[in-house]
Amino acid sequence: MMRTRPLKVALLGCGVVGSEVARLMTTHADDLAARIGAPVELAGVAVRRPQKVREGIAPELVTTDAAALVSRDDIDVVVEVIGGIEPARTLITTAFEHGASVVSANKALLAEDGATLYEAAEKHGRDLYFEAAVAGAIPLIRPLRESLAGDKVNRVLGIVNGTTNFILDKMERTGAGYSEALDEATALGYAEADPTADVEGFDAAAKAAILAGIAFHTRVRLDDVHREGITEVTAADMASAKRMGCTVKLLAICERAADGRSVTARVHPAMIPLSHPLASVREAYNAVFVEAEAAGRLMFYGPGAGGSPTASAVLGDLVAVCRNKLAQATGPGESAYTQLPVSHMGDVVTRYHISLDVADKPGVLAQVATVFAEHGVSIDTVRQKGKDGEASLVVVTHRAPDAALSGTVEALRKLDTVRGVASIMRVEGE
Amino acid sequence: MMRTRPLKVALLGCGVVGSEVARLMTTHADDLAARIGAPVELAGVAVRRPQKVREGIAPELVTTDAAALVSRDDIDVVVEVIGGIEPARTLITTAFEHGASVVSANKALLAEDGATLYEAAEKHGRDLYFEAAVAGAIPLIRPLRESLAGDKVNRVLGIVNGTTNFILDKMERTGAGYSEALDEATALGYAEADPTADVEGFDAAAKAAILAGIAFHTRVRLDDVHREGITEVTAADMASAKRMGCTVKLLAICERAADGRSVTARVHPAMIPLSHPLASVREAYNAVFVEAEAAGRLMFYGPGAGGSPTASAVLGDLVAVCRNKLAQATGPGESAYTQLPVSHMGDVVTRYHISLDVADKPGVLAQVATVFAEHGVSIDTVRQKGKDGEASLVVVTHRAPDAALSGTVEALRKLDTVRGVASIMRVEGE
Repeated sequence: MMRTRPLKVALLGCGVVGSEVARLMTTHADDLAARIGAPVELAGVAVRRPQKVREGIAPELVTTDAAALVSRDDIDVVVEVIGGIEPARTLITTAFEHGASVVSANKALLAEDGATLYEAAEKHGRDLYFEAAVAGAIPLIRPLRESLAGDKVNRVLGIVNGTTNFILDKMERTGAGYSEALDEATALGYAEADPTADVEGFDAAAKAAILAGIAFHTRVRLDDVHREGITEVTAADMASAKRMGCTVKLLAICERAADGRSVTARVHPAMIPLSHPLASVREAYNAVFVEAEAAGRLMFYGPGAGGSPTASAVLGDLVAVCRNKLAQATGPGESAYTQLPVSHMGDVVTRYHISLDVADKPGVLAQVATVFAEHGVSIDTVRQKGKDGEASLVVVTHRAPDAALSGTVEALRKLDTVRGVASIMRVEGE
Repeated sequence: MMRTRPLKVALLGCGVVGSEVARLMTTHADDLAARIGAPVELAGVAVRRPQKVREGIAPELVTTDAAALVSRDDIDVVVEVIGGIEPARTLITTAFEHGASVVSANKALLAEDGATLYEAAEKHGRDLYFEAAVAGAIPLIRPLRESLAGDKVNRVLGIVNGTTNFILDKMERTGAGYSEALDEATALGYAEADPTADVEGFDAAAKAAILAGIAFHTRVRLDDVHREGITEVTAADMASAKRMGCTVKLLAICERAADGRSVTARVHPAMIPLSHPLASVREAYNAVFVEAEAAGRLMFYGPGAGGSPTASAVLGDLVAVCRNKLAQATGPGESAYTQLPVSHMGDVVTRYHISLDVADKPGVLAQVATVFAEHGVSIDTVRQKGKDGEASLVVVTHRAPDAALSGTVEALRKLDTVRGVASIMRVEGE
């Protein structure tokens, strides 16, 4: 049943991911043709620097005019691996208008304005696939959109940024501080020269928005995601975590509220028990837990970035949208029918680990405990350590709304006997 | 775009999985309708014991005549959760003939004669989905068939049987022998009264056949899978594994040969390093590693069995085939275009851990080493322990063809100085 006219693919961007996509399209051409039912052909590659020699790509395919490329009516699929909001958004919507389906790895755009893309895809009866936008080659979008389509996802909890995991893993294993670990990550190529997007949690927050939207069948935008990075995680935090039998990870957490009427999405460092499978995710690996009503707890693990893994995800999507094109069908589009509101961080129910520097005199613990009680936050454990008139208190709370916890911390800061709040960290994964 | 005429589903089998499928179809009816684009309706349930009260299922839907049910021309999808070869095979092919698509959880049938089912599906332009046949709710079939469709899978390595993992985990944690651990598994409901299918590796071998077929786009049948169970794994083996920094797991391993010209599929107990993620898969959980050329190493983890997880996988497939039906399209069918031969176990390249009881006299090690050398098997490490004229030798080999390894063992048995071969176990996951 092999069709001989090839499906035509336009590639937007030819950096680390794009060049690997082009390479695999050539080396795996026979396999792709067999799996799709028709050959696929690279019909054009839009780049910024056309002079650069690109091995394996015929020079006549290279263009700097991406807008013209996506406006060609003979293009079946546009693969967008440029990143960023514009011109990617306009190029993708133009592609749909001219009849192409789109495979994108653009997490920033999908998190910022996925709705525009979904609407354009639906209006023109085309596919928008984006497995590569979250956690590289790890199949996550397809399992959430399709494998769990008959189930109810209640929670997605994962490590979705390799750079920050590398840094935290290094801190855990060597006792290094944040700056030292960041320097090593930069030297080894795990962190970019400007690491802001990773270490401040923007990258993870974009992925959290995408995952929450798909998991809960609702619209979640980047702005809806509470975001804290890892720049303030200290060697002392890591040591405290160890004493509790925990480690510190930057987690993306998407949750359905207990009453089912709202959802939350957040990214922040948190302590998780060493016995939790996410605790043993090392170096730049990613792993995501999905908790569904019937399926139970599933985990997906693998390399979360890199040219080859990301290209693998792009090609998997390419096969799917090509098959859909041939069948004149489309895959699952946006599913936002639940229209659940996204609650604020204050409504999230979680636990805190708080280290306080306090005066070493009688009655301090009673004072501190009273503040917790007044805010309705129940204490799980307290550890007290005194030395030379100074003392420290380490308090771990039971689960309480984040607003009550931060209100507690604010009130603690005002106590005369509390000299300082050394650290506050949420405790997850139990 | 909601269609109001419901899609009609016939359910074959109403045991643990079937009753959960029926229950979820009711409780999640609105979600399923939104995700499919049309409501789904249970149109009939074929059972063996019609008198049994089934909560939530209208008695008029219940029938003992499965053949008549699948022959109805108004059925859109048949869900087969009976298991076994017949009548399941005939019912499924009849369903295709009458225009239905099929969702099946029947690993035995798919491993034994998947080709017949695939051919019937293709002939009639219908879908055959079976995520639930391997590793319960863990998405594996869809990631292999779709997410990795643009990649080249070289290896699938996993724990795909919960009963045996529970037993081996118990042996590792408590030092118990096989029988004792089996008794506990039986008492807790993790092992059936007749545990043969699990402990002899038949269940895992069926899953290995299915996974190998999909991963390598070739046909692999149950008979092609080398199979060894766990009944001969001893407390001493587990202790030896521990001394090597390993544990023992029952692994299903599907591999592409180094030259790419053949594949192998096998199920046997093996030592794997404690640092390998599969080593920490506890109790009845399943986990599967997939190694692909571009994607790298991915792992999928979750509950491998049980009514709810299996029903979740069935419903995910149900949504997909219903969507395909509405679009008058089909999902990916059998992909066996590579037609690779399945090699025998002798061609598998692996490592051995061998414990020998030997005479405690000079020259024994030299004799033993000579036998290894004569068979072209290179020794990695030897540990020698002597006591009262008796001694033991523990040899770990480098990688060699399984045939050379078993030839070595045979020759060792014939040495006068070798009193016995205490255990032989393959070493994997490095």
